[in-house]
Amino acid sequence: MALIVQKFGGSSVADAARVRNVARIVTDTHKAGNDVVVVVSAQGDTTDDLIAKAAEITGNAPKREMDQLLTAGEQISISLLAMACNELGCPTVSLLGWQAGFQTDSKYGAARIKTVRTERLQVELGRKNIVVVAGFQGLCKYDDITTLGRGGSDTSAVALAAALHADRCQIFTDVEGVFTADPRKLRHAQKLAEITYDEMLELATLGAQVLNNRSVEMAKKYNVELEVLSSLTNQPGTIVKEAANMEKMLVRGVTKDSDAARISVIGVPDVPGIAFKIFSRLAAKNINVDIILQSVGHQGRQDISFTVGSDHAEEAIGLLRGLDLLNGLELVCDTAVAKVSAVGAGMETHPGTASKMFEALFEADINILMIATSEIKISVLIAEADADRAVAAVHRAFFAEG
Amino acid sequence: MALIVQKFGGSSVADAARVRNVARIVTDTHKAGNDVVVVVSAQGDTTDDLIAKAAEITGNAPKREMDQLLTAGEQISISLLAMACNELGCPTVSLLGWQAGFQTDSKYGAARIKTVRTERLQVELGRKNIVVVAGFQGLCKYDDITTLGRGGSDTSAVALAAALHADRCQIFTDVEGVFTADPRKLRHAQKLAEITYDEMLELATLGAQVLNNRSVEMAKKYNVELEVLSSLTNQPGTIVKEAANMEKMLVRGVTKDSDAARISVIGVPDVPGIAFKIFSRLAAKNINVDIILQSVGHQGRQDISFTVGSDHAEEAIGLLRGLDLLNGLELVCDTAVAKVSAVGAGMETHPGTASKMFEALFEADINILMIATSEIKISVLIAEADADRAVAAVHRAFFAEG
Repeated sequence: MALIVQKFGGSSVADAARVRNVARIVTDTHKAGNDVVVVVSAQGDTTDDLIAKAAEITGNAPKREMDQLLTAGEQISISLLAMACNELGCPTVSLLGWQAGFQTDSKYGAARIKTVRTERLQVELGRKNIVVVAGFQGLCKYDDITTLGRGGSDTSAVALAAALHADRCQIFTDVEGVFTADPRKLRHAQKLAEITYDEMLELATLGAQVLNNRSVEMAKKYNVELEVLSSLTNQPGTIVKEAANMEKMLVRGVTKDSDAARISVIGVPDVPGIAFKIFSRLAAKNINVDIILQSVGHQGRQDISFTVGSDHAEEAIGLLRGLDLLNGLELVCDTAVAKVSAVGAGMETHPGTASKMFEALFEADINILMIATSEIKISVLIAEADADRAVAAVHRAFFAEG
Repeated sequence: MALIVQKFGGSSVADAARVRNVARIVTDTHKAGNDVVVVVSAQGDTTDDLIAKAAEITGNAPKREMDQLLTAGEQISISLLAMACNELGCPTVSLLGWQAGFQTDSKYGAARIKTVRTERLQVELGRKNIVVVAGFQGLCKYDDITTLGRGGSDTSAVALAAALHADRCQIFTDVEGVFTADPRKLRHAQKLAEITYDEMLELATLGAQVLNNRSVEMAKKYNVELEVLSSLTNQPGTIVKEAANMEKMLVRGVTKDSDAARISVIGVPDVPGIAFKIFSRLAAKNINVDIILQSVGHQGRQDISFTVGSDHAEEAIGLLRGLDLLNGLELVCDTAVAKVSAVGAGMETHPGTASKMFEALFEADINILMIATSEIKISVLIAEADADRAVAAVHRAFFAEG
């Protein structure tokens, strides 16, 4: 018997038939002798519908009231799922975030979990109840309801698993696990049996869109074993856990992120402090800079290029135009670029990985605009039009294509 | 400056335009210098939609989960109304039932309010905030959400007004107040400026459908001054309060209740205890018996007739058929009947009221099937086809028709 936390996203509970499907998974797990805590998001489009309702009233809703509004969505899905589990013969209670003990700070709209007080959960589990918990929501010290922001339900599930010392936290999605590349794009992509937290973090950041980063960071911090799997097929998924006892693969996956823009400042005077001033200016506005390339100086001038998320490009350009020290300099922005990355904990000890990747791109006749590396990741910026070909070429270089 | 509780039903906040209309009324009251607490129901069809969602999952939902589900409805309406009030320049916070301190027993689906702990409300009022409270809901000792059942939002409003010692509790509806008869049916019906709690209770029971009985009983118990008024016109409504300083009108209103069925047991043996056995049998199944008529015995036999709500008629007949002591007796059920009543505290001291009413019916050639009287009410059971004519005739007898 194990204690298992299962998390289902909004599309998994979008209508009555899907709620029943989730109830079947949950009750099967319970009937197999496990304690089960389930975290669910709001059904399908509920959250968007509620946002639209607010927009009809005002363009300037207080965040506190938005949180009060939006959390009604999970309240609906948890009670429906609890009804469906009861219908399948397993006693089940639904708990709102605050009933499940989620205490957060009071940053409405993007609150952080401070603690999960598990007394009520323990009582319900002690009664052999399945417990269905509303994801994405908590309560702050003012007794106001808060939401956790983007990816909040994943975070709720991991926090619960950590607080309850659960044996596993299963994140059900519409994909069967984590793949060596996007399986919708690359037929040869393979499902991974295991992956480390660090690899998963790099893959999430790089656009693999399977797990929310914040939840992986929390899982790593509290050593919660995650499993990513599909709610539609009855197949084992991908386990995300600490590296111990895990085969270190040279490359675990190849990803593409088209949400990038390259900004170049041409002919910057080669004096100290300029890069600092540029990037501190962007940081002050919460614009995340990813790859940075500073050309070797030439005649006292150099070029500085960097990438930001596409939706921040315009704002970044505006900020730079406002900097006196860049006055009169040419600013170039290119949004038709993509970042292709290979991730794998094995590359820490295998220095040849980068050259193998570059060779594959060279043979596919793909031009590299920028390069960035970390201990477990190599990223290249290339033309967006080449991106899918690049993923395929790099994937072919590292994985057998069965 | 006064402390005013305002209650708006689901149709008053059914869409964004109506939410804005309610926000205008609320903020106008606040801007006039009053402390304002608002109680709202779920928007329009929200509750029915949620019930339908549950019905798609199961025909046998646990009541606890139904309460968890349904209370999401008011959560949506309170936050939208709070946004609209903020938009009109008045700082406003929404509070769920439990945040507003509503503590109930744990009879899910039909909970009774035990107390309202007003600390949070007082804090918000002290900050000069408008407070929008979710009607119909509370929290029981298990920290589970409960609903108050039918008419729950009216009850929430009156309970809040009592707990806060509010100067007035305004119940906004789609009618302009309490009328001497149904104004949709009788052109000459007049809006009453004032009415006593007892009169209101009789009128509510008799089908005037303006205020929920439970809320009037609570208002009477805690001496909360009620005002029934329209959210669509800017007119004073009808004040419901204690009789002191109020002109005692002979008749305050004339009502019709078509939801009645007459059941007759023919030829009951004239022995002690039979009536007791019949009515205790019905009471055990929570079937409310209204008018009872027992004929004078004849040859050791008598007839017993009584009225029940139409929707209980079939069940009542079934119960009586199961009684051995009525074996072989004829049971007659007539659902084509209606109860017409005149209500007024003045009739306590004016014994001629009944005869005046009977005379009016006689002159209109309307046959009286049964009669029941209380200190402030005279009811007659007549053929349903005659009911509207009867109301008009009785109304004409007691009110000048301007």
